[in-house]
Amino acid sequence: MAKSAEQGHPNQAFGWAATDTSGVLSPFKFSRRATGEKDVRFKVLYCGIRHSDLHMIKNEWGKSRYPIVPGHEVVGIVTEVGSKVEKLKVGDKVGVGCFVGACHSCDDCANDLENYCPKKIYTYGDTYYDGTATQGGYSDVMVAEERYVIHFPDNLPLDGGAPLLCAGITVYSPLKYFELTKPGMHIGVVGLGGLGHVAVKFAKAFGVKVTVISTSPGKKEEALERLGADSFVVSRDPDQMRAAMGTMDGIIDTVFAAHPLLPLIGLLKSHGKLILVAAPIDRPIELPVYALMSGFYLDI
Amino acid sequence: MAKSAEQGHPNQAFGWAATDTSGVLSPFKFSRRATGEKDVRFKVLYCGIRHSDLHMIKNEWGKSRYPIVPGHEVVGIVTEVGSKVEKLKVGDKVGVGCFVGACHSCDDCANDLENYCPKKIYTYGDTYYDGTATQGGYSDVMVAEERYVIHFPDNLPLDGGAPLLCAGITVYSPLKYFELTKPGMHIGVVGLGGLGHVAVKFAKAFGVKVTVISTSPGKKEEALERLGADSFVVSRDPDQMRAAMGTMDGIIDTVFAAHPLLPLIGLLKSHGKLILVAAPIDRPIELPVYALMSGFYLDI
Repeated sequence: MAKSAEQGHPNQAFGWAATDTSGVLSPFKFSRRATGEKDVRFKVLYCGIRHSDLHMIKNEWGKSRYPIVPGHEVVGIVTEVGSKVEKLKVGDKVGVGCFVGACHSCDDCANDLENYCPKKIYTYGDTYYDGTATQGGYSDVMVAEERYVIHFPDNLPLDGGAPLLCAGITVYSPLKYFELTKPGMHIGVVGLGGLGHVAVKFAKAFGVKVTVISTSPGKKEEALERLGADSFVVSRDPDQMRAAMGTMDGIIDTVFAAHPLLPLIGLLKSHGKLILVAAPIDRPIELPVYALMSGFYLDI
Repeated sequence: MAKSAEQGHPNQAFGWAATDTSGVLSPFKFSRRATGEKDVRFKVLYCGIRHSDLHMIKNEWGKSRYPIVPGHEVVGIVTEVGSKVEKLKVGDKVGVGCFVGACHSCDDCANDLENYCPKKIYTYGDTYYDGTATQGGYSDVMVAEERYVIHFPDNLPLDGGAPLLCAGITVYSPLKYFELTKPGMHIGVVGLGGLGHVAVKFAKAFGVKVTVISTSPGKKEEALERLGADSFVVSRDPDQMRAAMGTMDGIIDTVFAAHPLLPLIGLLKSHGKLILVAAPIDRPIELPVYALMSGFYLDI
């Protein structure tokens, strides 16, 4: 049982918290732990707003424990470091993503796959090693173990870079893991929301040809003009879908809502890869959370 | 439009043909082409019976053109070779699998993936280059281009080896492609029919630990005693499924009938692979046939 967020920590903090399923966030005073020997304390300057925050705020995954201070794309400037912190110092630009702890004894942890650890500790809405509730980045200050704090390069803006901490890694990781980064390859990106627009930018940076696939014709200009996609297919237009059949080495599907996958499979070349990275709210609860978080991948 | 099976070829042949959707096969006289310069003619000695033959016989995929002589796991002894045949000679033990031609001009053919060629020619129920209907191995004689004829090693029995030509390669190929052949790995095999039992035998030959997953408790003895599987899980028993969660590097799912996939995903380790190799009859027809034939693969 987690202790309440207000008790047990010496340092005052201020954030915006959900206290029920209404979707409304209210001003919230809580506390942060003292900076332990391996901890980094930083002043929060920006924090991404993700769709998963909305799910948690409204308890749409059925595991929310109020009050919740959301936010798991947290960036800021280091104000204090513990005595055993090795790589970070006061004044550094840093960020924290979606988890802040793990068991360090399972196969996943041993294989540098802490993100799949069944006992990993989420940045908010979870219970930390000390029994207190974790609280996220919609707040003024953050304390986290150095291991889970990313050092931002000086030339990366904090505001624009914050979404890399979850949206970014969620699309970057499968592009790399499934080897869809070779110049000249052709990938499809389904959905042009928080994940999709980052996927387009990564793919273009890799030299990969990108087709955005969307139900919304109105997103064509944004895809082509603003994000630099090479082409745009309206998924509800059979002629456009037919013309694109068998042309793609891979597809990253970022759409949360239920939608048909078979037409997407038709767009792939042989041994093409369909990667599903969204976590819908209507997926049966018996599916382990770590499977929800890791994305699915279809190779046909 | 294919010519009828009886016309146009000089050499008489005899087989068992479906002439309607009843599922009944009747004696059938037809003809085989003269042995071309790249062709191999062989006396058929054995032929596997596959579930897909039953689908074709009953027109359950909606593409059957009668009369159909089924059979695509065809083995026998070479009786004649064309002047340009290089690797086979009279008396050799040979086999033909599920296709006997391809376009040789598409990307798939160029990449040694003729099995995915959209214009590949199936061993039966298809139209050959010359416009005649192809007919399969439920017959006394077969003629095929050398390229599509496999040379059987002398120490491989023709009767026991025939099923390798489709059932065998269907499970061997993904085990190799998805790198599930390392000794000490653990895989699950769902279904213990024509595909599943071969998958168990291959996996054991690779040194891989095998768990058979089945709805039928009655198959336990066959799995463990006869095929050498290491363990057996009844998929409808939640306790057994729970005990096996997170233990498998990969799963080969050979079940044709519709069934839930999420419980299987729960059995996988991180980055485990769920490979679907069955071609159900109720899959929407807009899915390209080459996707149906190639199997799906889920990486979580």
